[in-house]
Amino acid sequence: MDLSRRSVLAALAGLTLSPALPSLLQAQQQAPAPTRSASDEHIAMLLYPGMTALDLVGPYHFLASTGVEVHLVTTGPDLSPVPSDLGLALQPTATFATCPEDLTLIFVPGGTMGTVVAARDPTTVHFIRDRASRARYVTSVCTGSLVLGAAGVLTGKHATSHWITRDLLTQFGAIPTAGRVVRDGNIITGAGVSAGLDFGCTLVAEMRGMLDAEAILLVSEYDPDPPFPGGSPETARPEVVDLISQGLAPFVDEARTLGILGA
Amino acid sequence: MDLSRRSVLAALAGLTLSPALPSLLQAQQQAPAPTRSASDEHIAMLLYPGMTALDLVGPYHFLASTGVEVHLVTTGPDLSPVPSDLGLALQPTATFATCPEDLTLIFVPGGTMGTVVAARDPTTVHFIRDRASRARYVTSVCTGSLVLGAAGVLTGKHATSHWITRDLLTQFGAIPTAGRVVRDGNIITGAGVSAGLDFGCTLVAEMRGMLDAEAILLVSEYDPDPPFPGGSPETARPEVVDLISQGLAPFVDEARTLGILGA
Repeated sequence: MDLSRRSVLAALAGLTLSPALPSLLQAQQQAPAPTRSASDEHIAMLLYPGMTALDLVGPYHFLASTGVEVHLVTTGPDLSPVPSDLGLALQPTATFATCPEDLTLIFVPGGTMGTVVAARDPTTVHFIRDRASRARYVTSVCTGSLVLGAAGVLTGKHATSHWITRDLLTQFGAIPTAGRVVRDGNIITGAGVSAGLDFGCTLVAEMRGMLDAEAILLVSEYDPDPPFPGGSPETARPEVVDLISQGLAPFVDEARTLGILGA
Repeated sequence: MDLSRRSVLAALAGLTLSPALPSLLQAQQQAPAPTRSASDEHIAMLLYPGMTALDLVGPYHFLASTGVEVHLVTTGPDLSPVPSDLGLALQPTATFATCPEDLTLIFVPGGTMGTVVAARDPTTVHFIRDRASRARYVTSVCTGSLVLGAAGVLTGKHATSHWITRDLLTQFGAIPTAGRVVRDGNIITGAGVSAGLDFGCTLVAEMRGMLDAEAILLVSEYDPDPPFPGGSPETARPEVVDLISQGLAPFVDEARTLGILGA
């Protein structure tokens, strides 16, 4: 059995802990999430009020399935659950103070007004800029790239975002680029919300190779089949594009004035 | 502006709460999630230790975007965060005791050994059976259909599950049926993990009509493009199917002995 195969089986074993699961899970409810990684690899995913939960949980599913330790890092002062834009709150496992200094990967999810607040917060932007300076991969999904941009790490880089904010990346000196997943050196950005699944698959293949990536794809049954078309502005009906553009206009107006903070 | 159009704009307005967002979100961190519904519609989504977070958050994203109030109902005795199979914990908003009696929709996410524990828990199964008896829609994604089956609500019904457990639905008298989303009367079941996005789109179209569904599809940029094939057992390489089947065998062995609890 080669190393890659062991890695997948270890991840599956984590899913099928079997007889000890109820007591283990009971313990988890009382304590921070356990370390699942046997290596020195660390992934940090940012949690901030108003994030879109699916932007984070799509990538989390694939990244955590590799067995690498994932730190869910709150922008808040303590480990209180962090509410997402639609209400669901996620439990962080680290603060800026307790997040490891050296990361394999840093990730920022998107949102709307909550993302603007995060991109204007000096402490958040300083954290991103610092960790990104040493991370192997610097990443986002959806409007999370606005936070990367405000941290000054997209200058001169090809990057993407939710379709409604992609062109706004020019304010950070980035080169807006269409694509579900866009890579420029160690910067890997995904398009809006559901692109986090394509992003996650891509990252697993990059970090662990194809066998692990195919195994995680299959266990996630990622064989998508939207029941109707229109998931992009190119394929949606014009009146639907107008409806969304109108509804998101207050957010877009704010997002176009971010610039690079503290640069 | 027709009713449907107002509904979408209301949902988008919820995403772009704008200037009041930071203080509102601060308040949310101290209190249960706010009521977002102006109607008497209620959705309940089950949270149990060991659930797969993406099984829940995919459908949640689409269902909560309709503006219907979503109750995140824990199997535990209090509102402690509920850990998912890979570690991420989600914050519940209701217990079995506080969940509304009459539901528009009840939903059960999947998992592996945690799902077996939930399907064997008399209190959980009683709750599902009771609420399902009056709900307009009775639903699941992935192996969540094992819990519906154990509650006795799939007897004689076409239903699906994660590919590795689909055939096990016969133990509940259900008719295993391939498909990303399978409907039989008011029973709507999705396939494994990522099928929750196709399931979510389908449910929004059913509950709110096509304009809302297309708007939520577009704002979620659901135009999937897996970076490599193999997301189903039919398209995956045989050695990858073998690897997953071997890794999940302990779970499958448990799942094949569930039967209908208390029937």
